[in-house]
Amino acid sequence: MIDIATHPWMSGLLGDEEMAATFAPAAELQRLLGIEAAWTRALGEIEGNADAEHIALSIEAAPIDPSDLKAGMAKDGVPIPALVRLLREHVGPDLASHVHTGLTSQDVVDTSLVLALRQVLSLLGTRLDLLDQRLTDQQNTFGYRSMTAYTRMQPAMETSVHVVINRWRQPLSALISDINDAQNKIGIVQWGGPIGVRDHAEADALGVAFARHLGLRDPEKAWHTDRTVLLEVAQLLSRVSIATGKIGEDVALIAVAGTGDIAFKGGGSSAMPHKNNPVKAEALIALADYVATLSATMLRSARHEGFRSGRAWLLEWLTLPQMCVAAGAGTQLAACLVKEVTCIGSTEESERKDQ
Amino acid sequence: MIDIATHPWMSGLLGDEEMAATFAPAAELQRLLGIEAAWTRALGEIEGNADAEHIALSIEAAPIDPSDLKAGMAKDGVPIPALVRLLREHVGPDLASHVHTGLTSQDVVDTSLVLALRQVLSLLGTRLDLLDQRLTDQQNTFGYRSMTAYTRMQPAMETSVHVVINRWRQPLSALISDINDAQNKIGIVQWGGPIGVRDHAEADALGVAFARHLGLRDPEKAWHTDRTVLLEVAQLLSRVSIATGKIGEDVALIAVAGTGDIAFKGGGSSAMPHKNNPVKAEALIALADYVATLSATMLRSARHEGFRSGRAWLLEWLTLPQMCVAAGAGTQLAACLVKEVTCIGSTEESERKDQ
Amino acid sequence: MIDIATHPWMSGLLGDEEMAATFAPAAELQRLLGIEAAWTRALGEIEGNADAEHIALSIEAAPIDPSDLKAGMAKDGVPIPALVRLLREHVGPDLASHVHTGLTSQDVVDTSLVLALRQVLSLLGTRLDLLDQRLTDQQNTFGYRSMTAYTRMQPAMETSVHVVINRWRQPLSALISDINDAQNKIGIVQWGGPIGVRDHAEADALGVAFARHLGLRDPEKAWHTDRTVLLEVAQLLSRVSIATGKIGEDVALIAVAGTGDIAFKGGGSSAMPHKNNPVKAEALIALADYVATLSATMLRSARHEGFRSGRAWLLEWLTLPQMCVAAGAGTQLAACLVKEVTCIGSTEESERKDQ
Amino acid sequence: MIDIATHPWMSGLLGDEEMAATFAPAAELQRLLGIEAAWTRALGEIEGNADAEHIALSIEAAPIDPSDLKAGMAKDGVPIPALVRLLREHVGPDLASHVHTGLTSQDVVDTSLVLALRQVLSLLGTRLDLLDQRLTDQQNTFGYRSMTAYTRMQPAMETSVHVVINRWRQPLSALISDINDAQNKIGIVQWGGPIGVRDHAEADALGVAFARHLGLRDPEKAWHTDRTVLLEVAQLLSRVSIATGKIGEDVALIAVAGTGDIAFKGGGSSAMPHKNNPVKAEALIALADYVATLSATMLRSARHEGFRSGRAWLLEWLTLPQMCVAAGAGTQLAACLVKEVTCIGSTEESERKDQ
Repeated sequence: MIDIATHPWMSGLLGDEEMAATFAPAAELQRLLGIEAAWTRALGEIEGNADAEHIALSIEAAPIDPSDLKAGMAKDGVPIPALVRLLREHVGPDLASHVHTGLTSQDVVDTSLVLALRQVLSLLGTRLDLLDQRLTDQQNTFGYRSMTAYTRMQPAMETSVHVVINRWRQPLSALISDINDAQNKIGIVQWGGPIGVRDHAEADALGVAFARHLGLRDPEKAWHTDRTVLLEVAQLLSRVSIATGKIGEDVALIAVAGTGDIAFKGGGSSAMPHKNNPVKAEALIALADYVATLSATMLRSARHEGFRSGRAWLLEWLTLPQMCVAAGAGTQLAACLVKEVTCIGSTEESERKDQ
Repeated sequence: MIDIATHPWMSGLLGDEEMAATFAPAAELQRLLGIEAAWTRALGEIEGNADAEHIALSIEAAPIDPSDLKAGMAKDGVPIPALVRLLREHVGPDLASHVHTGLTSQDVVDTSLVLALRQVLSLLGTRLDLLDQRLTDQQNTFGYRSMTAYTRMQPAMETSVHVVINRWRQPLSALISDINDAQNKIGIVQWGGPIGVRDHAEADALGVAFARHLGLRDPEKAWHTDRTVLLEVAQLLSRVSIATGKIGEDVALIAVAGTGDIAFKGGGSSAMPHKNNPVKAEALIALADYVATLSATMLRSARHEGFRSGRAWLLEWLTLPQMCVAAGAGTQLAACLVKEVTCIGSTEESERKDQ
Repeated sequence: MIDIATHPWMSGLLGDEEMAATFAPAAELQRLLGIEAAWTRALGEIEGNADAEHIALSIEAAPIDPSDLKAGMAKDGVPIPALVRLLREHVGPDLASHVHTGLTSQDVVDTSLVLALRQVLSLLGTRLDLLDQRLTDQQNTFGYRSMTAYTRMQPAMETSVHVVINRWRQPLSALISDINDAQNKIGIVQWGGPIGVRDHAEADALGVAFARHLGLRDPEKAWHTDRTVLLEVAQLLSRVSIATGKIGEDVALIAVAGTGDIAFKGGGSSAMPHKNNPVKAEALIALADYVATLSATMLRSARHEGFRSGRAWLLEWLTLPQMCVAAGAGTQLAACLVKEVTCIGSTEESERKDQ
Repeated sequence: MIDIATHPWMSGLLGDEEMAATFAPAAELQRLLGIEAAWTRALGEIEGNADAEHIALSIEAAPIDPSDLKAGMAKDGVPIPALVRLLREHVGPDLASHVHTGLTSQDVVDTSLVLALRQVLSLLGTRLDLLDQRLTDQQNTFGYRSMTAYTRMQPAMETSVHVVINRWRQPLSALISDINDAQNKIGIVQWGGPIGVRDHAEADALGVAFARHLGLRDPEKAWHTDRTVLLEVAQLLSRVSIATGKIGEDVALIAVAGTGDIAFKGGGSSAMPHKNNPVKAEALIALADYVATLSATMLRSARHEGFRSGRAWLLEWLTLPQMCVAAGAGTQLAACLVKEVTCIGSTEESERKDQ
């Protein structure tokens, strides 16, 4: 009942397998190992250490189980110190200094979040493209039909299905474009070291090398107390949910209006077999309301006190993955809902121009 | 990274195994079966059906897997129609009419939530008792020592450790007592049928019997659109988090003050071995901020439109179990944190009276 | 556009004159003076000071303008130090020690909040009684008519207007009763002095006398870091908004359904004279969503760090009065909306039993 | 106690006169008249009506008092229908058709909001420039001094005042630049007419002319159900509050640490004259928490159902101006706080490099 992404039945409606896979512990652990390996490679380059690649490969293949990090998480409030201990044991005392030296926990965890969020944004971009395509398909099929435009929850004027669907498409193009921009903006490593000031003689070269090994850019300074880029992602997640939530709410209200202007494949009732409940529409509204509130938590968590905040960081972890799954689930549901609408609008042809 | 209750490492700090067990899918399914069985028994009593007990036992033992409900959840927005189909198949066509007849999905799901929340409240009560005991223990050990009282984040006056700890104990007794009251208030079945009006010739007797078989009371009418009792639980969860969050925040601030007035077993840093981070204190603040925001979602979800709201109901499911786990985790963390404080206050004896 | 309570036109829809009057600066100042006078009287009793009544009368009549406290508020973050300076000047140096000695700023401000909230609760109680009466009136007039019950935003079954209105009445009786209880619970002075420990030889007698002069009870200890009672009021404000918001949302959805099942006096459009917009219904939804979110701020503000939190206190002031006005406005709007419904239900008689 | 922007004493700490002036009813009314006049001019151009300028001047000078719109707001849920009635009476029946024809209420109110928000963004930009300058000034004066960097609320390493202040400056440059971009993005009229589809033979020319008369651009289509641009402004307001809130929280925590690393002019206590409370720091935290929660309301209000939502629109009005005033107040407070810091860091010189 708790994790909508993996719950055996809740995930049927509210889950998102691809988003869930992005944040799955095993995937997260693989990212953490990849980041530690990239750091070892970058250090090797700067320090001219020929063993670096060998050590990095060993890090990537380290036989660590997600649950090995549990006690460390409980003690340190972050899984990295325990991970580093295991990795240093794994490579042996002679090579231990090539692991994690100069990094700090937040560097690793934030960079992993970046890698995860890039997958999230990529998924969302693809999903919104699909959603827009399906909306266009419905416009092509039913767009000429007449339909009532409601303003302030009252019938206002006759319009066309084309115009109705344009309302749903309107936010999508800017959203897709802004997701693309964010994909680029967030493509940066986190690296600052203990207090985030990159205290290393060859900091610039090291940052660049670290980023290159991860397919990311080096932002030239740490951003661990300035979460602007994460807020931007959170805002996009909210906008995605608002856009898909509007489709849900509008479909539900057209269904309430009962004009027969929409036909869809809804859900059944255990007590009233004749019901055709707008299940996906309801879910889209719930997910949008859910994401909107979690956004406030992200804003709350964006104020990191001092040179590093454990409090704020934990709050982010509690919030952002859930927002991704909920927003992602909304894109899938909306695309399904739009496809399932087998008929929309009255059979009369509309005279309204396209807009 | 998503479900703090079951995540292999996050649960180390932010999880709560007992709360997680309460909301585990298998436990939830068992409750659903128990409720359907209780209804069959109640119907049997009212209708004088000698087979009822036999059917009820069969329902309780039905070989249903949580994942069997996934497709139904996706279609209907609630797992019950699928569950009822499986149960009716299981008992066979001749007895199918003794299963679920007169109930509706929300009756089952809400009653199951009641049973889960009663466990939650019971756990919270026990945990808060323990927390209060540990605070008292520390008062007994260190209470006479002198300590600085801070007001508005500035040293204000000398006081005693006893007085400091009394600030943390202050909300607990009312909270424990209100949890007890809520335990009683929420001990009610949900039953209303299709639109919630209990359309049955022997509604009163049926409601009483249904409740009796579940160890609950019959509130005499359905409350599916009036979520007052759930809001009361949510408020208690918030109050629990605020009380434990204050302990965390105060400990963190005493640690910031660096007066040596508190010694605790904190967490390590991957970059700075000398650090003794107030990990549990940070986590308590994060959990409190998390629960506070989720509360707004509960208030948003408490307005159920018409005679039944799917939208509001989904939002509740997304929110309430998470609040339980987060508030629960806070009670465990706070009790640990208090116990781990190995010394509090200066060695000077305080002259402040107990208060 | 900002203060809905006093804005020249926004207050027409969203304001609440009585609530606004409760929190008006002049009323607030009068309460502050009354509290300082009560304290002087209480001190006089304990210390056997015959001048106390004379000084108290002088305090109550002190020629202080609200704007006299602005610079002090800016400097101290609370208006009381400036107020005390003015009052001590006003009574003269010989009597100055009878003013405020033993009190602290938060004692005064919290006690004033208590007095204001008691008015708020009293208003809400009266308004909800009226709302319930008007709902009963409509049941008496139209209750026998037939009406469609909607579940999950779809027509479910025929029912009666009586049953529809019962859904709206359902939360009101518990709410009215809980408001009464809260009225009693919150009838307590705040008194603790500098760090809240009532450091006075005759603390008990002093607290009792202070409370008696204000028509309040003495809770025997300060509650300035334990905001449970304020959270209870905030929860009631939310519940009020949810109850009135449901009426608004249901009326709006019945209007969307367009079955003619409801006739009301709505608002006009500047572009479409034929429109009859459900203005009050929309406003009730907006107010409920507004109050729900502000509630999260109250929960955030309820964690007061150390022995006194300026941060948390300011957040309360930013939030609670607005919640009162918004919840209050909802009670007025709902009562108007219900009265304005000139017809509800179809002309067919319903066969549904009353419930 | 309610409107922080205009309250006689609360405004001393939490107000912002310039922001308040932007949203003052008289200023709002003037904007509404200016927009109606611009529309009349635009219509005149398209229709070749020589009287348009004369009518527009008459509209701008119409003797309307803000309170004249109160009854209309109560009835219609928006002040524009009443305003239009008054304006048409004012210009007389022969010219009435040149007033508002083709516009709808939301076109006017949204365009007015745009004009107000442009002032808001302009103010914020200037204020953040000043804040950054003052931070630079303090770096120039005290930057070389040594100071302790705290991570996770514990002393971590020695650093310089320069580095500490860089943490506060870090979000500002992107923020100032994004505010500039938003200033441009939001420089658009709202025009769509009854259902937002610009149903006019010369829609393009009309939109362009309307925008030109207001110094805005024509976005070529209505955006009344797609609030992306308003969400962008809300996000900026949150980011402003987070940036200034961090300064407040950090200063408060340095003050808690009591290392003497910061000296500032704080506030007094009514009970403890020795206190030097970090009043502005506390206020900055409170304002940031306040704005974060209101943001959730903006996200909630961004989902506008159908072709126009009265509900969502009202919620925006309740929320956005308050966010502007609160975020604005934060910029003023932060600039004051930074200026008032008379000394920061220890007298020892730091060896940390600038970063």
